Amino acid sequence: MRILGIDPGYGIIGFGVIESEFGKIRVVDYGAVTTPKEMSLPERLMIIQESFEKILEEYKPDEIAIEELFFFRNLTTVIPVAEARGVILTTCYKKCKNLFEYTPLQIKQALTGNGRAEKQQVQFMVKNVLGLGAVPKPDDTADALAVAICHSQINSALNVNRV
Amino acid sequence: MRILGIDPGYGIIGFGVIESEFGKIRVVDYGAVTTPKEMSLPERLMIIQESFEKILEEYKPDEIAIEELFFFRNLTTVIPVAEARGVILTTCYKKCKNLFEYTPLQIKQALTGNGRAEKQQVQFMVKNVLGLGAVPKPDDTADALAVAICHSQINSALNVNRV
Repeated sequence: MRILGIDPGYGIIGFGVIESEFGKIRVVDYGAVTTPKEMSLPERLMIIQESFEKILEEYKPDEIAIEELFFFRNLTTVIPVAEARGVILTTCYKKCKNLFEYTPLQIKQALTGNGRAEKQQVQFMVKNVLGLGAVPKPDDTADALAVAICHSQINSALNVNRV
Repeated sequence: MRILGIDPGYGIIGFGVIESEFGKIRVVDYGAVTTPKEMSLPERLMIIQESFEKILEEYKPDEIAIEELFFFRNLTTVIPVAEARGVILTTCYKKCKNLFEYTPLQIKQALTGNGRAEKQQVQFMVKNVLGLGAVPKPDDTADALAVAICHSQINSALNVNRV
């Protein structure tokens, strides 16, 4: 099963694609969609939409996992990040109905066994689980791979965490 | 010039279409897009996207005005409302590059001369300016007409309040 993980954002949106079969996980690809600061909000949202259309077309995920947003984190950016997340969700849903969301706590718990783990511990586990030579950069790609790995541990037929 | 005003939301999204020529304003149409509570977030966002595609196709606005969001209002709903607003902005921008946003204070000031006016005063002015027999319902449609009327008072060539 192919899983696309997404770390929602506005200036940088991380994505990571993994294959999960019989309890084994391998990385397919990862990267980040970036939008220039000089552009207007609608232009940046358009770039995000078009980039995700291409990502979905290229990797054809069976399931998609995205991090949940909380307003008490990053108060100043929560609105544009949520606006971008709405665009991402709609674009994804057109191509793949299997959308799941996870809280940062669930992701940390799944990767490290500790819901309060430091960012570096999560990144270290992403690198190890996927057998990578180094932690993927930027951080947003490691975060996207983390949510994909988190989702691979869930029996999606149970429909837990469905968006 | 035809202006589409939008009151962003998630369960109910008001829209209002006006014609503004030589300082005169007339109403073309207004209404609300609604999304069922029972549906998932991505399904509701899809309805919003498809509904606005139809609204844009039908009314072909020259300019679009939308209310700005603030996280300190409606803390519990700001994330889904912003997610929906991102979808609306992207859908609108594809058909019309002239997108403008206004704060509630600017809208109240434009309609009543008082940035702290009560909701009822704004609605009363919407009814009067457009020569309607009654205040449009639901409130979201009156709010959408208000932002359209507010925008009609701005020289859009100045690019003030462009999103």
